[in-house]
This record gives sequence, structure tokens and C-alpha cells, in this order.
Amino acid sequence: MTKVDDGLELASLLDEYLIAPNPENARLTRAVEGVDHSGMVTQISVVEERPLTIYLNRQEIVTAMTIGDYPDYLALGFLRNQGMLHDSDVITAIDYDEELETVVVRTEVETSYEEKLQKKTRTSGCAVGTVFGDMMEGLEGVRLPEVEVRSSWLYALAHKINRTPSLYLEAGAIHGTILCQQDRPLVYMEDVGRHNAVDKIAGWIQSTGTDVSDKILYTTGRLTSEMVIKTAMMGIPVLVSRSGFTAWGVEIAREVGLTLIGRMRGKRFICLSGEDRLLRDIDPKNAPEEHKKHRRKSSDG
Amino acid sequence: MTKVDDGLELASLLDEYLIAPNPENARLTRAVEGVDHSGMVTQISVVEERPLTIYLNRQEIVTAMTIGDYPDYLALGFLRNQGMLHDSDVITAIDYDEELETVVVRTEVETSYEEKLQKKTRTSGCAVGTVFGDMMEGLEGVRLPEVEVRSSWLYALAHKINRTPSLYLEAGAIHGTILCQQDRPLVYMEDVGRHNAVDKIAGWIQSTGTDVSDKILYTTGRLTSEMVIKTAMMGIPVLVSRSGFTAWGVEIAREVGLTLIGRMRGKRFICLSGEDRLLRDIDPKNAPEEHKKHRRKSSDG
Repeated sequence: MTKVDDGLELASLLDEYLIAPNPENARLTRAVEGVDHSGMVTQISVVEERPLTIYLNRQEIVTAMTIGDYPDYLALGFLRNQGMLHDSDVITAIDYDEELETVVVRTEVETSYEEKLQKKTRTSGCAVGTVFGDMMEGLEGVRLPEVEVRSSWLYALAHKINRTPSLYLEAGAIHGTILCQQDRPLVYMEDVGRHNAVDKIAGWIQSTGTDVSDKILYTTGRLTSEMVIKTAMMGIPVLVSRSGFTAWGVEIAREVGLTLIGRMRGKRFICLSGEDRLLRDIDPKNAPEEHKKHRRKSSDG
Repeated sequence: MTKVDDGLELASLLDEYLIAPNPENARLTRAVEGVDHSGMVTQISVVEERPLTIYLNRQEIVTAMTIGDYPDYLALGFLRNQGMLHDSDVITAIDYDEELETVVVRTEVETSYEEKLQKKTRTSGCAVGTVFGDMMEGLEGVRLPEVEVRSSWLYALAHKINRTPSLYLEAGAIHGTILCQQDRPLVYMEDVGRHNAVDKIAGWIQSTGTDVSDKILYTTGRLTSEMVIKTAMMGIPVLVSRSGFTAWGVEIAREVGLTLIGRMRGKRFICLSGEDRLLRDIDPKNAPEEHKKHRRKSSDG
């Protein structure tokens, strides 16, 4: 049985996941030939990147650049996280056309967003600007459940996630977002844009009707306002990242009661929101070491 | 005179720039209090992130999330890189309103993009989807000038850029894009979104009428299709990054004749497009070492 370098059995690690990355999926990476610094011809594996145009019924919404897995989750999660779809909207179908590179989310009746958009387009003639506004609107009054988070879980999650075979380890230049429960990683999504990875998680949650009030979202990306807003829109009370913060991301996290932990590398991390809900139940000295080969390089950038 | 750790004089390094980062600008970072892994209360500096709504005349185009410096360059560069503004469009004013967080680019006559948008919005009612299409349209027939690039320049640039005081070194979680000529860094822009940093460079080029046919663009971000397209739209023949590639980014670079070099860290790099224009004039063994403290962490992510 394959062993991960620290002796942890890969198979038992993968058993913890409901959805793990699939680096073997030939549709997601491509071998490209180049020449390295020493002048040697070399082949490297790079991630695919495809346009996917998302429709809400007859309404064209956006063209996302994605690796192309889980287009249905991506479309559904994007529309939810942007506040364009609500619980009251009954989804009748999600139609993906690989050839046309389109995915259409269909609802029983026209959504309030479509109505608003038609009004909007009659005035300013553009929908782009509304997207951001809708996201903020959707946040009004949001208060996330107050749940305890243990530092031992965070260390265990980072340890497992960094050792999980992924497109990142295979080809780099990709972000990962993982939905977790306590010290168990459940759903690991990757994409060229970190927002896509989060939206695919949101789509999975929506499709499976999973209760996220006790979940933790771990991401390789920065804790920007967009990441914080999407996490809050999903109702997930804890957001953890290897990366840094933006001031507005921190501000929003504190407003909605999101536990926000960043710069988590090896034994180190910093909590900028929800400190009172964080239980430090393990001495960082006893936390698992981060192996150099698993450190994410700036190809995360 | 301040010394950078390798003895290179900071002042003489900064002298090379026309625009260098301004980590002292209090408007761009904020001190935030948090608690670290050991339970110690600590203050860290995080980058600001503000919405900026860009208008083309009376047409609302997009709300960008930005650190907020150079809003005029950002708006102008964005519209150029998206193919919404052309050489034929005469710009009469760029009005930034800090309070309203808006910037309006005004042209002498209505642009073809505005006309198209009004037609478009009468049909599909949304502009978002067109943005991507316009970018690809703008690329048709683009062939970049065939210029030589020397590996010694690339090593020198990385060496200088990594040592330049920046918001990244101050607060992390930010991307940098630098317009360079041979081994000299000229304009160093940073932003929370790497596309914003590139658009600010594009706006500067446009405003100053700088000839870029002999320039090199260095970025900390990944070489996605968006980065490659923007670089090509700007007419810059060489794009270099510390980070990795996407398959489509490589494909487009090869189509338009863009020299594409990535994964450049320390002595290592890989050229995936334009190898015949790359002169390896220095033995990587003699290239400057990359100091650990200057390595970009995954807070680039």
C-alpha cells in the first residue's frame, strides 16, 4: 500500500474524503514541452483552463475560467454565493454542454435576480456592477453559529491536506479549498481561481443539502473580502488559510462572527476573528512538522 | 545609507525605478490585532482592500477590489486590456471620486463598446459575458515584436525586485507586477488582485505613451490566460513569473509570439514559449542566490 512519507497510509487518508482531488484525470492537466534554465528540454505538467459561461435560465451571467471539473457545482455555487439564487428558488435542472462550454441553471419560476437585472439593465445597462452589491446585500443580518474550534484539528487538517495527492502537487498553479469537519477533510476542490474552488464547494453543499453549521473551510488562497463573504454566505462558521489577510476581509469576518485564522504554516498561525471560540488544546511544539516538499510554493500566486 | 542585506545600496536600487512601491503610504495598510499560535496577542499589518466602480462615460462597467492607489491608471488600463477602449478613442478626462469610490473615464465621443453594450443589453441583458469575448477579439492578428531576452537580465531583475521594499514585504497577501527594460525595473505596481496590478501598469503605459516593444513584464502571479492576454494586449513581448502556468496561457503565448518564462526561483526557470528569442548569456551557477527572507510565501495565493 502506498505510503506517504511520514508513514501515514495514503489509502486510509483518502478514505476520510467524500470527494478527493483526481490528479489522474487526464482532462485536467496537459504535458507541455519547454526548456529549463540549464538549456535542457523538459516536459512539465500544467493545469488546463477553460471558459465556462454560466446562465441563470435564459440570462447569461458570467464566463468563468475553470479547470472544468464539476461545472454543475461551480454554476450552482457561484449563483448562490453571489446572492443570485435563494433557498426559495426551486432548481429544476442544471444542464452542462461540454461542447458549447455553457452550464444553465434552471429554476421553476423566474428569480428575483433576473427581474432586478432586467430593471437594472434598462437603467445603467450593465449587470457587472450589481454582482458586488448583491453579495453585500446577501450578508445583511448574517450571524454565523458560535462553534468551538480546536487548534489540534487545524494542525491535523493541514497535515492531512498537504499530503493528499492533488493537481497542485502534480502541476502547481492551482488553488485548493477543502470543506472539513473537526480534524477530517471531507470535500477537496481545486481550481485555477480560488473563488471557483469555493463555489464548487458551495454547489456541493447545496446539492447534497449538507448542514455546514459545524464545518470548517480550509483554503490555500488569501483571506480577501470575497473569500470571507462567500464563506459567510455558505453559513460556514470557520475559515482557515495558509495565506494572509486583507483589512476588509478581517472587518467582515468580525461583523458576521466568522472565526478567521490565517498564515497557518507548520506550527504557526494567527487568529484575527473569533479568538473566544478557538480552543488551544495542543502545544504547538507537539504539532506535526510541515515537510518541505509539501510546502506550497508561490505558484499558488 | 540603508543597506539591503546583500550590501546592495537601497537608494541606488530605488533610483532605477520611475515608480516604486510605497509601503509607507498609511492608506494602503492597516494594523490589526490578533492572537498567534502560542496564544500571544500580536499586531500585524494587513493590506487594505476597497471597492472601486469603473465607469466608461455614463456606462457602469465593473466594481474592482483594489488597494486603492492609482485608480486612474487602474480604470484606464482595465478598459484598454478588456478591449473596451482603443487607440482611436480620445480620452478627455479621468475623474476619481474617493468618497463615492468611483472612477469615470470620459471619451470625446461614445465608444464602439458602449454602442455594442447597449445592443447586447437589449438582447441578453448582461455585459459580463461580453467582457471575455472582447478580450479574445482584441487578440485577433496580434503578433508581438521579436526581441531578444537575456537570462542575465532575468536573474538581475528577480534579484532587484525581491529586494525592493514593497507592500508584500510589509504585509504580504498581495501581488506585484513590474514593467522592466533589460535588467532595469521601471514601474512596480502592487494590488490584491494580480490583474489590477497589471491593469495599473497598462494605464501608466497608456498615460505616458511609453513604447513597450522592448520591455519585459515581471509578475509574481500565475501565468493564466488572463495574464497572457493582458500582456499581449499591452504589446509587451516578454512575460516572466515566479509562478506556474496554465495550459491555455501557454497556448495563447505561442500563438501571439509572447516569450513566456515561469517558475523562476533562484537559479531555476522554465521557458515554454519563445525559446529561440532567449539568449542564455550567464551560467546559472553564477546567477545571484535568492535569500530565504526574500522568497515569496504562499501568502501570494
